Amino acid sequence: MTKKIRDVVYGFVILDEQECAIIDHPVFQRLRRIRQLSLTDMVYPGATHTRFEHSIGVMQMATDMFDCIINNNKRILEKEYSLDETGIKRARKVIRLAALLHDIGHAPFSHSGEDLMPLLPPGHIRYVENGNKKYEHEEYSIAIIKNIFQNLIEKHRINNNFHISVEDVTALLGDPSVKVDALSLLWKELISGQIDADRADYLLRDSIHLGVNYGLYDRNRLINCLTLGHSETGDLILAIEEKSWHIAESLVLARYQMFSQVYFHKVRRIYDYHIQMAVKEILKYKRDGKGVYPTPDELDEYLSFDDWEIYSGLKQHLGGAHGDIILERKHFKCIFQSQLIPTDADEKEIEKLKEQYKDTPNYLDDKASTLWYKLDKDIIIYGNKHTQPLSEKSAIVKAMSEKTVQKRFYVAREIS
Amino acid sequence: MTKKIRDVVYGFVILDEQECAIIDHPVFQRLRRIRQLSLTDMVYPGATHTRFEHSIGVMQMATDMFDCIINNNKRILEKEYSLDETGIKRARKVIRLAALLHDIGHAPFSHSGEDLMPLLPPGHIRYVENGNKKYEHEEYSIAIIKNIFQNLIEKHRINNNFHISVEDVTALLGDPSVKVDALSLLWKELISGQIDADRADYLLRDSIHLGVNYGLYDRNRLINCLTLGHSETGDLILAIEEKSWHIAESLVLARYQMFSQVYFHKVRRIYDYHIQMAVKEILKYKRDGKGVYPTPDELDEYLSFDDWEIYSGLKQHLGGAHGDIILERKHFKCIFQSQLIPTDADEKEIEKLKEQYKDTPNYLDDKASTLWYKLDKDIIIYGNKHTQPLSEKSAIVKAMSEKTVQKRFYVAREIS
Amino acid sequence: MTKKIRDVVYGFVILDEQECAIIDHPVFQRLRRIRQLSLTDMVYPGATHTRFEHSIGVMQMATDMFDCIINNNKRILEKEYSLDETGIKRARKVIRLAALLHDIGHAPFSHSGEDLMPLLPPGHIRYVENGNKKYEHEEYSIAIIKNIFQNLIEKHRINNNFHISVEDVTALLGDPSVKVDALSLLWKELISGQIDADRADYLLRDSIHLGVNYGLYDRNRLINCLTLGHSETGDLILAIEEKSWHIAESLVLARYQMFSQVYFHKVRRIYDYHIQMAVKEILKYKRDGKGVYPTPDELDEYLSFDDWEIYSGLKQHLGGAHGDIILERKHFKCIFQSQLIPTDADEKEIEKLKEQYKDTPNYLDDKASTLWYKLDKDIIIYGNKHTQPLSEKSAIVKAMSEKTVQKRFYVAREIS
Amino acid sequence: MTKKIRDVVYGFVILDEQECAIIDHPVFQRLRRIRQLSLTDMVYPGATHTRFEHSIGVMQMATDMFDCIINNNKRILEKEYSLDETGIKRARKVIRLAALLHDIGHAPFSHSGEDLMPLLPPGHIRYVENGNKKYEHEEYSIAIIKNIFQNLIEKHRINNNFHISVEDVTALLGDPSVKVDALSLLWKELISGQIDADRADYLLRDSIHLGVNYGLYDRNRLINCLTLGHSETGDLILAIEEKSWHIAESLVLARYQMFSQVYFHKVRRIYDYHIQMAVKEILKYKRDGKGVYPTPDELDEYLSFDDWEIYSGLKQHLGGAHGDIILERKHFKCIFQSQLIPTDADEKEIEKLKEQYKDTPNYLDDKASTLWYKLDKDIIIYGNKHTQPLSEKSAIVKAMSEKTVQKRFYVAREIS
Repeated sequence: MTKKIRDVVYGFVILDEQECAIIDHPVFQRLRRIRQLSLTDMVYPGATHTRFEHSIGVMQMATDMFDCIINNNKRILEKEYSLDETGIKRARKVIRLAALLHDIGHAPFSHSGEDLMPLLPPGHIRYVENGNKKYEHEEYSIAIIKNIFQNLIEKHRINNNFHISVEDVTALLGDPSVKVDALSLLWKELISGQIDADRADYLLRDSIHLGVNYGLYDRNRLINCLTLGHSETGDLILAIEEKSWHIAESLVLARYQMFSQVYFHKVRRIYDYHIQMAVKEILKYKRDGKGVYPTPDELDEYLSFDDWEIYSGLKQHLGGAHGDIILERKHFKCIFQSQLIPTDADEKEIEKLKEQYKDTPNYLDDKASTLWYKLDKDIIIYGNKHTQPLSEKSAIVKAMSEKTVQKRFYVAREIS
Repeated sequence: MTKKIRDVVYGFVILDEQECAIIDHPVFQRLRRIRQLSLTDMVYPGATHTRFEHSIGVMQMATDMFDCIINNNKRILEKEYSLDETGIKRARKVIRLAALLHDIGHAPFSHSGEDLMPLLPPGHIRYVENGNKKYEHEEYSIAIIKNIFQNLIEKHRINNNFHISVEDVTALLGDPSVKVDALSLLWKELISGQIDADRADYLLRDSIHLGVNYGLYDRNRLINCLTLGHSETGDLILAIEEKSWHIAESLVLARYQMFSQVYFHKVRRIYDYHIQMAVKEILKYKRDGKGVYPTPDELDEYLSFDDWEIYSGLKQHLGGAHGDIILERKHFKCIFQSQLIPTDADEKEIEKLKEQYKDTPNYLDDKASTLWYKLDKDIIIYGNKHTQPLSEKSAIVKAMSEKTVQKRFYVAREIS
Repeated sequence: MTKKIRDVVYGFVILDEQECAIIDHPVFQRLRRIRQLSLTDMVYPGATHTRFEHSIGVMQMATDMFDCIINNNKRILEKEYSLDETGIKRARKVIRLAALLHDIGHAPFSHSGEDLMPLLPPGHIRYVENGNKKYEHEEYSIAIIKNIFQNLIEKHRINNNFHISVEDVTALLGDPSVKVDALSLLWKELISGQIDADRADYLLRDSIHLGVNYGLYDRNRLINCLTLGHSETGDLILAIEEKSWHIAESLVLARYQMFSQVYFHKVRRIYDYHIQMAVKEILKYKRDGKGVYPTPDELDEYLSFDDWEIYSGLKQHLGGAHGDIILERKHFKCIFQSQLIPTDADEKEIEKLKEQYKDTPNYLDDKASTLWYKLDKDIIIYGNKHTQPLSEKSAIVKAMSEKTVQKRFYVAREIS
Repeated sequence: MTKKIRDVVYGFVILDEQECAIIDHPVFQRLRRIRQLSLTDMVYPGATHTRFEHSIGVMQMATDMFDCIINNNKRILEKEYSLDETGIKRARKVIRLAALLHDIGHAPFSHSGEDLMPLLPPGHIRYVENGNKKYEHEEYSIAIIKNIFQNLIEKHRINNNFHISVEDVTALLGDPSVKVDALSLLWKELISGQIDADRADYLLRDSIHLGVNYGLYDRNRLINCLTLGHSETGDLILAIEEKSWHIAESLVLARYQMFSQVYFHKVRRIYDYHIQMAVKEILKYKRDGKGVYPTPDELDEYLSFDDWEIYSGLKQHLGGAHGDIILERKHFKCIFQSQLIPTDADEKEIEKLKEQYKDTPNYLDDKASTLWYKLDKDIIIYGNKHTQPLSEKSAIVKAMSEKTVQKRFYVAREIS
């Protein structure tokens, strides 16, 4: 028994029984209450879609990508890794599960919640003394998969065919406790990499729900030009067919345009700040003064938080001044913004403003800092038996490898 | 100072200062927390859009319709109602306000909340002894406009040009306390009628966010063919130009298809039931045993309810068995559905099922009863100086004037 | 070696070597010079797309339909017809070839050329004494496949796998000289039937190129709900899954709307007349006074005609008065049109006009007569092991089974 | 009496009587027989749309742009140029006519025909001794407007309101015989400039008909952010509002992507060559050995050529070897292509191939040379009362100002 779900990007997504069972679990259903883009609807009213919809979409996208890679590279996968029909089906299932669950540990209001994660305890694998390092949402995802979805993954009768363990799944999400082989490293690229299914899905989905076309790259073509090349160490790596290298460029450009015109929008950014401040207050109130989320060891409590829960707190005025700002849409106003790479004049202006407003808490000195394209994670173009990095083929992509740091200065309405 | 909002249907909607002020009011911002289609996202995950987005859209649609009607009928409006440039601008503003605020009084989970409205008190204009008549959401909208938005409407400096009163606005929403003239009756058609801006907007918007195309009629063409005709009593009435009568037919068909394939979807319908039962429990808990919403005289309390508030209650298990069904997506299953007009065999089957399950509360005997097209509100086609009802021109529309009553029988999973 | 072609409906269409060879043949390339919709661009300027594009699309659509039917009915096809993997692959190839070539015999300006086909000779299978029956474009298609594409079909090395004969292909196009078995009759439905790939493709393609949305039914869903049922005689027949019967209804409605708003457009219809009259003149000039196309026995001459050839004749003023009307876009004007089913008053008006213009050749008394839905070819809905005709489930479709005959009266500009 | 035409980009375009009369003229109707993208349909089958459709679209786009600029800059236009309502209406009409007629002089097969233009005679304004300079299609457009459309422009009763002369129109198309004032120079930008209506239209239209999304920039937003700034000389110039500068960047990127993925497609390029060679043969045949088009002094003969006329010649095998290549789609194959900026290795490879094939005429050594963004025509961003060039704000656009010269080597099939 399979089931079809209607999707704005793919038309339909087909699920098997196990996937249905995972999706119907209350912890997965919680994703219906985590919006994909936090308070972006304050600027783009259509931006009310959720991590629920996106998670199912990433599963479909990863599957489409996988199927095409297999189709184009059956012989080499068999030769180098002895991968046959059975192995392919099993890998496909692991990828689907990892894609479906990759965002399961998200905090409310998506990325704006990351500063409210608790500090890592000594002994944690990433702990650095005085480093003030925090938990990341991926660690919650891994903990949830291992603790809550183990039965649904390992004991489901469909798994009689595959004998997949939760570690097989978390390995693709970067679980440091699992040793990964070359093949898993390859599939991991589909979940998080320069051309992963996550990015490939959200660019399209966000564009559709917001009513913009900046992110509408050519999905059909992207999927069809995925192939495998060899890294310098001889391992198989994800690559783009040379004759279609422009599609890789267009994906990079689509992402750039979505960031510069939507995700980094000046009003959207300030609401990230307001919601973060408000959630901190609510966490203090609900967690005996601790203004941070529970750790991955306190999953039940952690999972009780979602956008709707927080909103309910805002309405009870538990979110402090920033909470009320959200309810009345009276956000701080941006009174200055620099060029993408601030000039000296820009820097001076910012300093002047800081001096001017230093005695009031009601301002924000914001940096939207980014590297549009990371040369150390260059997309690989493969053709004629040799590989070439995308940044070498495209002067445009090369130009995106310089860091930009747009600075903005916001102040509260009453003093603006 | 105007402001542009991005919209999935219109590209951009332009707002003046007054409209911005209304939208930024917390009571209007509340619409961000009332989803347009209740729990439809249980079936179509993209259906997370809200009354907020829709309300702004209806304002734009009503304006576009109005502008076109004026453009095509300036002379006749001047001749019959002495309407000049000033009068046109004022009428336009009243229509925009009415459209923007037409849904301001919606209860959580939209239409599924209507059975939880309180009973009308004796003395209410629609009261009938033992009639068990309830308040309707339009009455809340009218009360809110009069009590909460009066200042923003009447005292805003932009209103210096128009001297619009709240009654001018509520008249278009069917306020029985306001006497309306022929011209207001005409504009009222744009807010609620067979081809109103509400319907014209939601068919498109719902289609986009759900990823279906059933409702995607031709907006450009619809707007361009709106005109005025004369009713039998000689009043001006909204009509469709004869040469474009097929577009009216296509709007009726778009609506039919959205209802039959989305709004009446068997799983969607059962969640309307589950949420209604769950909200009743929550209302009992929060309102001292009263399982209904506050009346329009208790607006503050009424407005404290929204989808997110209710959901927060569900998570605290205040929603009873039906609340938990929602959290775990374990809805009753439809074990039988009749033809659109039930046959004798269908009726017998339903009776048999009722008998079989009569000792358990865990079933629902549902009727989706509708008249797809109401002949007494026939769309008017105008051409060559005479009018003709749409149902006379289109055999298809005529066929939709017969009542259908699809019956379904649902039972809880554990007994299905 | 496969090849991908970009397509506005499907994104990409993938072709094998044999299909590429067929497409590159000059006789197939000729379809680039036969517009899909004749002179429809006189009304909808985007309507310049050709039978070339459509033919490739129909191949893709037929394949998608076939794949889904197979997927849903493998067991029954094996049980009743012993169809295994090999048989499926062969059937798929025959269907692809038939779909690709189904329009190969089209005359210039598509359907408007049908009245200019030569009379059937005595002895022809459809000949009736004094019946004035003419050749149909399907007969040219069949002749071309057999005479011109035999080698490319039968001798191509890809055919080593299938041993397909041209008769296998023409059987699906209604070749009366081939005896067809039950299975071929089933596949034939995919090429010409109530829900065939031809219709399913052109509704979408025409809508896209014209910029209308009347024909944009839900392709994804249509394809996914195709299945097989049993006819009264026990044969397998094409059917729609019961739970998705509304999609069948929506296809019928999409077609109705495209016809009523595009194909039967009053200006479009008159250009069908003008081009037919003009082509007749050109045929007389080029073919020694014979104002008809060559017969299927004179294929070379027949194939020398295409839209561009005819246009070149128009410019040399070989098309007579009607040709010049086209060049200057001075078409006859429609001075009267009746209701879809003419009333008595309509009929009288037409008679009056005929009387008035009887002494001039410059008028046209046009009938757009159609049955929107043929009850004797009712779409079959299959569910719960029994079948039901669509017209029984849908009152709307039922209403479309009455014949409509819209009458129009056109006169030349100079006398209008 | 206005008339509406359906358009794939704008929904509808509304025409006045004069514009209808111009469009219905046989010389304008000829544009129905000049495809927008020459033989691009050999690669993208949907590319059959024509200059006819595009010309009407450019008129609409230019009008939308103009209306928005006026709306945002009324005060300054009045202050600096005393432009009032009357002047605005007249300017609008001139722009509409220039936009509508800007491509009226195109040769068959669009740009691929430019090498077949006749040499300039001594005395021509652009003549340079031994310069081998040729006529350009704009010169034909200007000649046609002056010679053929003078009456329709100057004597049409609608022109009673404006007293527009043909020189007013041709001035916007770069007519060197007309002295232009600052205001005309400004409007000229809308017809040909970095963000002109021509480009703004074809990127969208080509994308739709080809089924690609590379060119689908955000039209709504582009139009809304057009404004006026001051050049260094103090004249008003077309500019983009600073807060929307990313939309200017996205237009540049859309164009880049359409060129790199469509217009410079390797198969498309070779057909430009084949058709140019074939047309040369046909011109020799039809024009007594002169393998070039007639001059602007021989308009009647020039206008007798269109795509369909040429195709008719191809079919009579008047196009020589290259003509037959087109009919059979047996184009030269690309056996080598360089990086966008050829490396030394690339240059050596090309030299080797030239040497290898030097004794056969059946090869082409092609250079697709372009500057994606011209710094001397930098788009102007205007905000806070000062202007800044786009290339300063966008590192990506800056990166596009380096010349690229992709080289390719094609050889005939029989020797490949």
